[in-house]
Amino acid sequence: MGKVEDTGRRAVVLLSGGLDSATVAAWLRADGWRVIALSANYGQRNVAELDAARALAPLLGVEEHLVVRVDLATFGGSALTDRAIAVPKAAPSAPVATDVPVTYVPARNLVLLALAVSCAEARGAEAVGLGVNALDYSGYPDCRPEFVRAFAEAARRGTRCGVAGAPLRVLTPLQDMTKTQILRRARALGVPVERTLSCYDPSPRGAPCGACDACRLRARAEAELSAGPAP
Amino acid sequence: MGKVEDTGRRAVVLLSGGLDSATVAAWLRADGWRVIALSANYGQRNVAELDAARALAPLLGVEEHLVVRVDLATFGGSALTDRAIAVPKAAPSAPVATDVPVTYVPARNLVLLALAVSCAEARGAEAVGLGVNALDYSGYPDCRPEFVRAFAEAARRGTRCGVAGAPLRVLTPLQDMTKTQILRRARALGVPVERTLSCYDPSPRGAPCGACDACRLRARAEAELSAGPAP
Repeated sequence: MGKVEDTGRRAVVLLSGGLDSATVAAWLRADGWRVIALSANYGQRNVAELDAARALAPLLGVEEHLVVRVDLATFGGSALTDRAIAVPKAAPSAPVATDVPVTYVPARNLVLLALAVSCAEARGAEAVGLGVNALDYSGYPDCRPEFVRAFAEAARRGTRCGVAGAPLRVLTPLQDMTKTQILRRARALGVPVERTLSCYDPSPRGAPCGACDACRLRARAEAELSAGPAP
Repeated sequence: MGKVEDTGRRAVVLLSGGLDSATVAAWLRADGWRVIALSANYGQRNVAELDAARALAPLLGVEEHLVVRVDLATFGGSALTDRAIAVPKAAPSAPVATDVPVTYVPARNLVLLALAVSCAEARGAEAVGLGVNALDYSGYPDCRPEFVRAFAEAARRGTRCGVAGAPLRVLTPLQDMTKTQILRRARALGVPVERTLSCYDPSPRGAPCGACDACRLRARAEAELSAGPAP
């Protein structure tokens, strides 16, 4: 990461270990924010994701990396936390699901954003950052802009800083970007893309499966970027 | 608890182990809801609170009692999770604080409600219940009705059930009640009041300190109820 102007403002960025959240962290750093990276150990079967987040955090120039434990597996109901539900796999050319997938973790982003707000308020940060984007919100209700707006309002009403007239901002700089645009931006920002892990079901050593929706979306973006000029 | 008509509807009630949340659980049971009690181990120094919740749950006729771990102590910033910050104590006659107290846990109800929604969605429940009330919201921003309304909207926008047109209801039956009214209602519902624990700083064996805001509010309600007829 290059040198950046330090504005002194602090943001808590939810860092999953995947491409999108790493890009948000790098982007905010480049804009002069001091970044506190927050990862959640929420009982995901993909623990390699947390390892990727831990490896990425120092490379992204964050001030601090916190891992908060929240055991969503207590509730079950998702292929990402419940080993009894299989992660769907398909050939690279097959269409990506557009309805709510079994990999949806009930209210995950509601929980993660709430934790980010708690962290931000405790640490005196002014914003929280989240890597949701256009592709995600075709299938996941908690990635849509109307959810993010409603959440920001709830956070404003329910926090000391919000009530005091200094509500936290909820930053989602990737909201309208495709995966290809995100990948291009990530490279421009110097994100170590090869260290990010987007797969829903990697091997225990962190190798992507190549067949889940996340792997297939990423492979397409890579292919598009190598195939032609910027759209 | 007496016999109740079973409506087949399910609600997740946040059960802290205190008087208010136990009263909500009993009230919803009396209204025919099947209740899933959800307690959070959030790193509170008051672990006796969780013991009280575990002892209360079966007495309240709940269908299931879940304890979810979420480590808010990772962030610090509150007397309830950080042993370096003292819980304020005062004489019984001293006024109770009306500004945001140091016992405010940053965004706690936002986090707890988000977890309740995650649980409700995973278990097919139709509502979440929370014991916030008029007294609490003088000092805690996340107990105010405008927060609860904004949260319900965020939950509607960010969940599969909400997007599908069946949003979760957020039930706060104690919202406009004073502590004295809650205590009277609790007794009428058959809540084992003596088993509830409201203290912010009990002894390791669960004896209330008698001097924190929560203890003093409760003592006043007890005194009011024994002193005179219903207002």
